[in-house]
Amino acid sequence: MTSADTDTDTATPPGAIMSAEMAEQPEVLRRILADGTPRIREVADAISGRGPRFVLLTARGTSDNAALYAKYLVEVLLGKPVGLTSMSTTTAYHAEPDLSDCLVITVSQSGGSPDLVASTEAARKAGAITLAVTNNADSPLAAVSAFHIDLLAGPERALPATKTYTAELLSLFLLVEALRGGDGSAADGLPDLAAQVLARRREVVELAQRYRFAQRLVITSRGYGYPTAREAALKIMETSYIPAQPFSGADLLHGPLAMVDNVSPVIAIVPDGRGGQALQPALDQLRARGADLTVVGQAHEVARTGPGFALPAGVAEEVQPILEILPLQMLAYEIAIARGLDPDAPRALAKVTETH
Amino acid sequence: MTSADTDTDTATPPGAIMSAEMAEQPEVLRRILADGTPRIREVADAISGRGPRFVLLTARGTSDNAALYAKYLVEVLLGKPVGLTSMSTTTAYHAEPDLSDCLVITVSQSGGSPDLVASTEAARKAGAITLAVTNNADSPLAAVSAFHIDLLAGPERALPATKTYTAELLSLFLLVEALRGGDGSAADGLPDLAAQVLARRREVVELAQRYRFAQRLVITSRGYGYPTAREAALKIMETSYIPAQPFSGADLLHGPLAMVDNVSPVIAIVPDGRGGQALQPALDQLRARGADLTVVGQAHEVARTGPGFALPAGVAEEVQPILEILPLQMLAYEIAIARGLDPDAPRALAKVTETH
Repeated sequence: MTSADTDTDTATPPGAIMSAEMAEQPEVLRRILADGTPRIREVADAISGRGPRFVLLTARGTSDNAALYAKYLVEVLLGKPVGLTSMSTTTAYHAEPDLSDCLVITVSQSGGSPDLVASTEAARKAGAITLAVTNNADSPLAAVSAFHIDLLAGPERALPATKTYTAELLSLFLLVEALRGGDGSAADGLPDLAAQVLARRREVVELAQRYRFAQRLVITSRGYGYPTAREAALKIMETSYIPAQPFSGADLLHGPLAMVDNVSPVIAIVPDGRGGQALQPALDQLRARGADLTVVGQAHEVARTGPGFALPAGVAEEVQPILEILPLQMLAYEIAIARGLDPDAPRALAKVTETH
Repeated sequence: MTSADTDTDTATPPGAIMSAEMAEQPEVLRRILADGTPRIREVADAISGRGPRFVLLTARGTSDNAALYAKYLVEVLLGKPVGLTSMSTTTAYHAEPDLSDCLVITVSQSGGSPDLVASTEAARKAGAITLAVTNNADSPLAAVSAFHIDLLAGPERALPATKTYTAELLSLFLLVEALRGGDGSAADGLPDLAAQVLARRREVVELAQRYRFAQRLVITSRGYGYPTAREAALKIMETSYIPAQPFSGADLLHGPLAMVDNVSPVIAIVPDGRGGQALQPALDQLRARGADLTVVGQAHEVARTGPGFALPAGVAEEVQPILEILPLQMLAYEIAIARGLDPDAPRALAKVTETH
């Protein structure tokens, strides 16, 4: 509260806004489970009634990583073909695809970016069922969409998005669960577990020391963990300006592995489940090359590697991303602090990026 | 010929195989236009007869960048919803989506990667119309697919793929043209223009000097040029080990711009057309930040910027990527040579990457 109210005061420590918003995440997750679920089920019922056959996801930045997570959910849990749209095909090339039987989900924290509004309007005209997932029920994006899910995250004031990202992940998980007739119970324990993870700040401060002088980072994962790798890279680039490159473990083996050497640190996000198993060949190659490897995720893999951050066991793989990103948000924050930067004032970010 | 036959001879200069294959590209493009077109039209007719409503593209590495190009073509020219598949949903999570009415196009130079074969088999069982686009008609991927388009590029022996990439782009363009009833004539001049571009090696050698000691690179574009940015980044990472990060101009403004400063070189690929226009806000921001900017593409933008490589005018925007990548392939090659590396022997690449 105080830090939010006084951020123009020069006495406010750097990163106070981002830090406060990261800390709100257990409460936001709790609010979505308690207050958001009925509305998400209503929306899912209405959408199911219209029988969509294909799903398209539209987003940018952090929300695009949440959309990628939803893509895995739709393919694996819902069994429908799904794609991420390239927005420029609408806004620059005026593509007019036939979108009947398509569910178009647009994910945006602010709901204000003109290109998202334009592409959602075009999708509705082209026959799509349109759903906006935003943190602002009064936004232009919510207004032009047939359906809206409110993220219930409260105003987000930090430029690096944190609480709206986990709110997007949980809302999209509950949506896909409702669409397939599941009960979403895999998410029940997340608020408490998130609080436990966020309490382990000391471990992250230690990890951040490793990257104090890093000139680049590779972040890899597979399956459900891959969106986490992308979001972690984005968060680190936004706050610490370290070029961080996310690769799926499979893509890493198709070329970019050549540039990993023993001075190029690698963070591997190892899901506890099939994604983690599918990542093993990449982990083996990284170890064989003597890469500087840090593991976030599955406890056994962390213990085997050395530096890392073990996540709680016994969580369904499809909701692990909601916990996985937390130590990586904290890491982005702590690296920035260690470098004397202010995560609340990144060099080039505006809260509503007006891309067209 | 000689260089290809004697590459085990220690007298072969570094990069001789890659260099020879880059030089073959005009001839490969000519062969596809002359000999490949009838087969591509046959395949397109058969596919059109089955009335696909949704298109999914599956690929990895360089071929994934060709698939991304095809995604733009399908959205803009064909007006169908389209997605890139996340292969791990099939191979790790055993997703079983309903793919009736879906055209699944799998793009692979070798046609041999087990995960591509497995996911294409799964797609066929799930009701998809399956099409393999490969450089090997006898490959396992061609065998499990209902339809096959041969790239006609001749054996590719260099580890960094070059001639199969442009062959994939042209074949996919001709396929989409045939599917929409176009005549593909926009591609007619490409073989001669490609030869003209490849003859300008001296300009690229000069450009390569700029990056002799670069520790990282950002490569940006928009629309049809974005797949070129990704493929250029991959080629540079494979051959020179410089971490090169591709961003769409819009995504760059949503965060990563923070890490561009005046010692972080940026290469902008500026299509002559709507993609180039949509890239302008990113170019303006990069110039305002004093970024070290090099332009490949539209001649006016190159002249305005200083260093760069102007591409021939008067080429339809949707086939410009087939020319755009040529100076960037040459650049990746020349940077590697300037750094004393051998582009024919990257540190971590096998020609058929066996991802699962």
